[in-house]
Amino acid sequence: MGQAAKKASFQLATAPTAQKNKALAIIADELEANAAAILAANIKDIELGRAAGLTDALLDRLLLNQQRLSDIAADVRNVIHLNDPVGSEIDSKILENGMSLARRRVPLGVVGVIYEARPNVTIDIAALCLKTGNASILRGGKETFFSNMELVKVIQIALEKAGLPTSSVQYIEKPDRELVSQLLKLDDYVDMIIPRGGAGLHKMCKENSTIPVIIGGFGISHIFVDESADLVKSVAVVENAKVQRPSACNSLDTLLVHEKVAKEFLPMLVAKINQQVTFVLDKSAKSFINADNQRDATEGDFDTEWLGYTLGIKVVKTIDEAIDHMQVHNASHSDAIMTESLRNAELFINSAGSAAVYVNASTRFTDGAQFGLGAEVAVSTQKLHARGPMGLEELTSYKWVGKADYLVRK
Amino acid sequence: MGQAAKKASFQLATAPTAQKNKALAIIADELEANAAAILAANIKDIELGRAAGLTDALLDRLLLNQQRLSDIAADVRNVIHLNDPVGSEIDSKILENGMSLARRRVPLGVVGVIYEARPNVTIDIAALCLKTGNASILRGGKETFFSNMELVKVIQIALEKAGLPTSSVQYIEKPDRELVSQLLKLDDYVDMIIPRGGAGLHKMCKENSTIPVIIGGFGISHIFVDESADLVKSVAVVENAKVQRPSACNSLDTLLVHEKVAKEFLPMLVAKINQQVTFVLDKSAKSFINADNQRDATEGDFDTEWLGYTLGIKVVKTIDEAIDHMQVHNASHSDAIMTESLRNAELFINSAGSAAVYVNASTRFTDGAQFGLGAEVAVSTQKLHARGPMGLEELTSYKWVGKADYLVRK
Repeated sequence: MGQAAKKASFQLATAPTAQKNKALAIIADELEANAAAILAANIKDIELGRAAGLTDALLDRLLLNQQRLSDIAADVRNVIHLNDPVGSEIDSKILENGMSLARRRVPLGVVGVIYEARPNVTIDIAALCLKTGNASILRGGKETFFSNMELVKVIQIALEKAGLPTSSVQYIEKPDRELVSQLLKLDDYVDMIIPRGGAGLHKMCKENSTIPVIIGGFGISHIFVDESADLVKSVAVVENAKVQRPSACNSLDTLLVHEKVAKEFLPMLVAKINQQVTFVLDKSAKSFINADNQRDATEGDFDTEWLGYTLGIKVVKTIDEAIDHMQVHNASHSDAIMTESLRNAELFINSAGSAAVYVNASTRFTDGAQFGLGAEVAVSTQKLHARGPMGLEELTSYKWVGKADYLVRK
Repeated sequence: MGQAAKKASFQLATAPTAQKNKALAIIADELEANAAAILAANIKDIELGRAAGLTDALLDRLLLNQQRLSDIAADVRNVIHLNDPVGSEIDSKILENGMSLARRRVPLGVVGVIYEARPNVTIDIAALCLKTGNASILRGGKETFFSNMELVKVIQIALEKAGLPTSSVQYIEKPDRELVSQLLKLDDYVDMIIPRGGAGLHKMCKENSTIPVIIGGFGISHIFVDESADLVKSVAVVENAKVQRPSACNSLDTLLVHEKVAKEFLPMLVAKINQQVTFVLDKSAKSFINADNQRDATEGDFDTEWLGYTLGIKVVKTIDEAIDHMQVHNASHSDAIMTESLRNAELFINSAGSAAVYVNASTRFTDGAQFGLGAEVAVSTQKLHARGPMGLEELTSYKWVGKADYLVRK
């Protein structure tokens, strides 16, 4: 499988954009043409899932219907319109010896993707890899096995019709978990592993893979309300960061407030979100808050990604205390400062160890679509290769290209 | 050690360039001021090495003298003059909602470097990490233990005098190999591992590290002489790639020649380098070559990095056959085509899986200094993060910085 993918990747690397787009167009068309078979397979998954006692929320994630299938096809058609990053050159220059030197964007080669329930990921990731000339090896969750089999069939038909190798997109069918471990060791053939799922999956990949892994999605999100902040406007931003979509990984977990404004700011905030939110209070914050639902913070609360209507609050004496708190409580995803001070804004930006840092904006903006990337492969919280939302460019590497007139090194 | 490095990295991340340069200037001065102590320690290493039966070549790599120490100090002073990449912004744009968004270069954080004999690496890597605001944890070879202890002492003095945390550069002193394994698992504190040494070291790091590892330095280098090439000029390039410095990893290993020009080209080449080079011949090349030192190629010869005066030769019927050969024989470092054909040049560039590809130039150019990077941290042959020669920029990551006027997500 690795060898076949590697071989396909060489062919994909020189495939013209038009040919790759043709394959994508056929995938979209075939998704609609084969809707009946795909939805029938999905019903099988849903029934098995229900029998296995999956929650309603999880069953909803598995579910495909006509509308969702149309949305998936529309997403594939969007990818057609994105610029193909492959072949573009960056940092080109002429060296003193006359060599013309540039870095040319090229596909990574072979991308391994391990993901959980949602069947849309199968099409999504296959389309993004194809667009960037990467071969992919996919391994979806067993809960969507029958749906994925039909979706992969559609992809195979499209590859064949477009004249691309069918091993450009391969799917690990057998449920055997051992196969995932084997995939993670194929460093001779696979160039990058993207886990899309929970913390456990990421940890497993990091610990077992000899292939570079893109780790992402986790981290405590903070907002620090500085003494100079516009407090009324800050309430709106904190509200947005906490309650607009609390299940998202860029939603607010911990609010840090400068002590000089805590007395004015915190009651205004509580008045606004009291009905929805449970407040978890550091002892520094207790005297400022009188909410319907509140409790004292205990060990670990400030290291918890709430993913729900809970908010940790701490009052700090200085911006440095806020930064110190963030540095020991995993600020690595999205953090924001509310301030009118240029100096504090810059200090916060440079000190926060986060993939995305905001000045006077909600943490909720960390997202490929919001950032105008057109597509989102994953959100990385590691520092190598790609950080934050990853678009098509982050599915490419580069090679140095030097051109000259039979030049030798002196 | 990891925690101390992490803590130092937060302080280094906001250290002004002037302060980092001051530390570098003091390192250079202190190297010269403490020459006597350093050279005395180096004599101890040399004597122990000689007693342990190290080869003369290896002993020469260990050796420091007044001149080499001055060269190391001069290299540190050169780093002062390089641009500090930290803080510069790329891809900045204004989003439709008014947010000003950019990617700002930031230090990686903590870099772990595991290296072999040469003591100059200790100063070199510490200086490059310091310049880019990274904390470093160093682990040198036991053969240079006493020299490294003195060099690290110099670094510590300089850090203290410049007002930077002394844990910005730490050295693993104990010879215990177990400590290296522990370092490779410190993914909570260390952001990147750079092994500088042989293939065994790279393999060990790749297999045991839970931290991203920069793999590099290996790969078979090829030159393909196309039917359209200027043959006289091509002889000069092949000669340069093979004999200018055959011990370098960018020197030529395998020559591929189009059959239409083999009869004219190969005797010209042999006439030029016959006295220095042993030719290892695929059966396709045998009829064209009559050299003083030649033998038939056997299994594995075309997968061997010669690092000496040996050259594999194969004659191919088409450019596609040349590319196919390269794809199965680890073309991942530096490769070149000699051609007058634009079409073949582009096909070769896009098909070669190498970090650096040349058209009508020697493979010997793959080098940080030749590429004008100012410094070379390592040469990467992997595809994530950095490929080919790595300069200061490749010791940085980026964070997304979004600024707005109390903006909320709709």
